[in-house]
Amino acid sequence: MKDKSELSYSNIVRLPRYYRFLSMLSKQGKDKISSAALAEIMGVTSSQIRQDFSCFGLSGQQGYGYSVSQLLSEIGILLGLSEKKSAILIGAGNIGTAVANLSYDDKGFEIKAAFDKDKSLIGKSINGIRILDISSIGEYVKNAIPECAFLCIPEDSAPEIVRELYELGVKCFWNFSHYDIKTEYTDAKVENVHLGDSLMRLSYLMSKQ
Amino acid sequence: MKDKSELSYSNIVRLPRYYRFLSMLSKQGKDKISSAALAEIMGVTSSQIRQDFSCFGLSGQQGYGYSVSQLLSEIGILLGLSEKKSAILIGAGNIGTAVANLSYDDKGFEIKAAFDKDKSLIGKSINGIRILDISSIGEYVKNAIPECAFLCIPEDSAPEIVRELYELGVKCFWNFSHYDIKTEYTDAKVENVHLGDSLMRLSYLMSKQ
Repeated sequence: MKDKSELSYSNIVRLPRYYRFLSMLSKQGKDKISSAALAEIMGVTSSQIRQDFSCFGLSGQQGYGYSVSQLLSEIGILLGLSEKKSAILIGAGNIGTAVANLSYDDKGFEIKAAFDKDKSLIGKSINGIRILDISSIGEYVKNAIPECAFLCIPEDSAPEIVRELYELGVKCFWNFSHYDIKTEYTDAKVENVHLGDSLMRLSYLMSKQ
Repeated sequence: MKDKSELSYSNIVRLPRYYRFLSMLSKQGKDKISSAALAEIMGVTSSQIRQDFSCFGLSGQQGYGYSVSQLLSEIGILLGLSEKKSAILIGAGNIGTAVANLSYDDKGFEIKAAFDKDKSLIGKSINGIRILDISSIGEYVKNAIPECAFLCIPEDSAPEIVRELYELGVKCFWNFSHYDIKTEYTDAKVENVHLGDSLMRLSYLMSKQ
């Protein structure tokens, strides 16, 4: 397998999709797949798959094809999924509740606590995760030292909370807030989710003649 | 401006981000921006911006820069945002509730009704959208003829409902379900949201040495 440092983000961006389809095959009890068969399921060309897997250093055998379990294991290592990372959830509204209810078992994360400013939510739990008062976040972070924060708050609330977290050492963000973290904090590790951008792309597809 | 048919999806994929940043500038009361200033805000190069805008046929004036309101209008037309499209929401759970509470005013969509199979939700409303019994969806679609469906249901429930909707003429989907619609229905217009893929990319960024 290649060293991670040799792979760029533009390479890696396709790996989760492979992981998702291979997980589906694994659940169906399949453990052997040719690049042609995988290509058909995924709607890509088999040469693209061979090229990607070669670039990722993933192993297949001539005439045998790929082992699904081995691919899953190797891609899991590339993506760091086996290293459980601790997360805190900021914002327990609609997006935050949806995020709290996702499945994290196979994705390398564990949400340790949620935070909100809404007094009616504080003390309650979502999916077994306790909602704490946002005013206690500094104290919590100093003690628990979470590795990342899932930001499910409006854009205008984000700069202040990101500054506090960043200064306390939390520099990794799954960001639903639309606040552009990287512009201010260039060394932060950020994955942005812009649902509105996705919706505008659908609008384009629908309006295109 | 270029004809839409000349633009590929790989071109268009960057337009929503421009739209988002320009909307922010507009809210701040700015109506004139140079490619250099926009580049700095967006964290890209000004030559990338000039190249993109030229490709999209967006207009700027030598020495003046770009008019924010004109760019917003032109990008809005390219993305079809002014054509209000009717949508139905399938699934009123956590993701569905989050989706129902997004802002659609400036994104060219309007959710007309929501559907769920959970009897305890039917008859209630989210964000003013009435939740109807999923068993009545065929009747509803025949009468209301919605243009697209927002699929906020688990993967295993999706194939059956997509088949029903597709056969009734609903062929556009904002798809949170992970079910791979395009493999089965090649002419469907689909924008997939895979939150898990995004999270795995964050895992990669965090685990990379």
